[in-house]
Amino acid sequence: MTKIAVFGSAFNPPSLGHRSVIESLGHFDRVLLLPSIAHAWGKEMLDYSLRVELIDAFIKDLALNNVECCTIEEELFHLTQQPVTTYAVLCALQEKYPQAELTFVMGPDNLFNFRKFYKAEEIAKYWTVMACPEKVSIRSTDIRLALQKKESIENLTTAKVYAILTNNNYY
Amino acid sequence: MTKIAVFGSAFNPPSLGHRSVIESLGHFDRVLLLPSIAHAWGKEMLDYSLRVELIDAFIKDLALNNVECCTIEEELFHLTQQPVTTYAVLCALQEKYPQAELTFVMGPDNLFNFRKFYKAEEIAKYWTVMACPEKVSIRSTDIRLALQKKESIENLTTAKVYAILTNNNYY
Repeated sequence: MTKIAVFGSAFNPPSLGHRSVIESLGHFDRVLLLPSIAHAWGKEMLDYSLRVELIDAFIKDLALNNVECCTIEEELFHLTQQPVTTYAVLCALQEKYPQAELTFVMGPDNLFNFRKFYKAEEIAKYWTVMACPEKVSIRSTDIRLALQKKESIENLTTAKVYAILTNNNYY
Repeated sequence: MTKIAVFGSAFNPPSLGHRSVIESLGHFDRVLLLPSIAHAWGKEMLDYSLRVELIDAFIKDLALNNVECCTIEEELFHLTQQPVTTYAVLCALQEKYPQAELTFVMGPDNLFNFRKFYKAEEIAKYWTVMACPEKVSIRSTDIRLALQKKESIENLTTAKVYAILTNNNYY
C-alpha cells in the first residue's frame, strides 16, 4: 500500500528547518508539501501562489524523488471560502488516493496542541499522526526577520529559495 | 539511516489489533515490539517471560521480516526496580543503536494523553512520535474476557498465540 506523508505548513517561506523534517521522511513513497491557504488563527502570509513558487524552487533544491507540492488547500478554499482544516484536507486526499495510507506530519509543538485540531479524535481514528522533531532549528520567522534587518539568509534556506527571496521584496 | 519503529504495549496478550498496527509499519527497516515490564499505573499483567513467549509465537505468525521482540525494558527494570518510562527506553535504545532514527509508536488514545508521559517534551524534541489508528478493533482485554467466559479466541489473535492460550491457563 502506498504510504503518503502529508506535511502541511505555512512554508512562509520554506526553511532549512522544513528541509530537516522532509529529509527524515525518506521511508514514505510520497511526501506532499501542503502550503496552508489561510492560517487558522488569521496570521498574515505571503500570497499563496508566491509560496507555491517558493516551494517548487525548494523541491528542486531538495532533489529527493518522493517530494511534491500539493495545492489541494486552494481547491478546498475556493469551495468554502473558509480556513481549511486538517480534517478536510485528509478527507479530500483520501478520496483522491483511496488506496493510499496517509500519515499526517506535524512539528513537535502541535503534538501538545493536537486536541485543539478540528475533529482531532476523528483524525486519530482514521489516519496516522506523526510528530517529527525539529533537527535543524531554523524557522520561517528567522528568515523573515533576517530579510527585514537586511541580513543574509544564505544559511537559513536552500539556494533557489535564497535567490528568489533576495531578488524580490516578498517580506 | 536505519528507521526503527519502537512499539511498546503490554501485549497482554498479543491481539489482532496489535497485528493491524504492526502491518502498517512496513516502511520501517525494523519494528521492535517492547512488552512493558511493569505498567505505569500498576495494572496487573501476565508474567513478563510468558508474554515474551507469546510475542515470539505472535511474530512467527506475522511472518514479516522487519519485526522482532525487544526486552530492553527488563534490563532497565533490573537496574532500577521502578516502572520503566518511555523516555528511559528511548534513551537506552538510542545508545544501543546510535545511528538509527527511532520512531515511538503508540495507539490513538495516547495521542491525547501524551503530555502526561514522563519528559513528554524531551521525547518530542529528540524522537519522532507516531500515533497509529486502530484498524482492527480487537484488544487484549477482549481476549482475556473471552478466555474467562470460556469463549473461543480464535478470531481475536494469531494461530500460535491461540494455541498457547488454549493449552494453558494464563488468564
